Amino acid sequence: MPELLHFEDFPVGRKFDCGPYHVTKEEIVEYAREFDPQPHHLDEEAAKKSILGGLAASGWHTCAMTMRMFADMMMPIAAARGGVGSPEGRWMKPVRPGDVLRAEAEVIEARPSASKPFGTVTFACKVFNQREQVALVKMTPIIAKRGAP
Amino acid sequence: MPELLHFEDFPVGRKFDCGPYHVTKEEIVEYAREFDPQPHHLDEEAAKKSILGGLAASGWHTCAMTMRMFADMMMPIAAARGGVGSPEGRWMKPVRPGDVLRAEAEVIEARPSASKPFGTVTFACKVFNQREQVALVKMTPIIAKRGAP
Repeated sequence: MPELLHFEDFPVGRKFDCGPYHVTKEEIVEYAREFDPQPHHLDEEAAKKSILGGLAASGWHTCAMTMRMFADMMMPIAAARGGVGSPEGRWMKPVRPGDVLRAEAEVIEARPSASKPFGTVTFACKVFNQREQVALVKMTPIIAKRGAP
Repeated sequence: MPELLHFEDFPVGRKFDCGPYHVTKEEIVEYAREFDPQPHHLDEEAAKKSILGGLAASGWHTCAMTMRMFADMMMPIAAARGGVGSPEGRWMKPVRPGDVLRAEAEVIEARPSASKPFGTVTFACKVFNQREQVALVKMTPIIAKRGAP
């Protein structure tokens, strides 16, 4: 089993690849039914006439897909206590059925705790679709344990 | 059928009540399995030892529940083209199984389009639990049609 990454292993600029995530119409509609029942997330015909110009995932669904990609990448490799912080980011492009998303998580800040054996590592996550367009940017801070001194 | 609310009907300071939303352990775990499989969202024993001190919903799940409460309130009453903007807010308190959430959506900005018959109305949503603690604050902008001149 490989050694886990600690706070010191997350210097600013280090990048991690997440994904892929295959987006299906079924999942878009299922999420929308449960959490965001606006017509442009539920129905192709209504979506064509909407500001999105076609069926697209709820922006909150895209955040959730990104969380999943990030967790799948980070949980097995990091000595971390989980995510912290707050929803913060920007939706850049609609996410469509058939899109294949991937994310790049780059360390943009690493701040050790003054008193505890932890530090906060903040990743800027860029989510790309298969056309290399950025669909979402978002901040993802985690609490990482410090390594043995 | 009551007349729909247009841009002019959303002056700064007007408040709307959303909810309630009954949070269950089953839904917390189901969401976490799909989108945020961290142990403190999945397993009570692991959650007790975590920074959350007990099982709690993924913060993205809380955003999704808030979206649902807001959509259920707003869609039937507003002449709106849907939500816009970006994920922005702050998670304030863990959301636990058995919590009953409600939200207050207050208009904090109403900006007409210079050229189109629309305007952007931005709501600050405060999500309260049944102990009247704020669990989440978040911004929710929508595009609302202007009324007949």
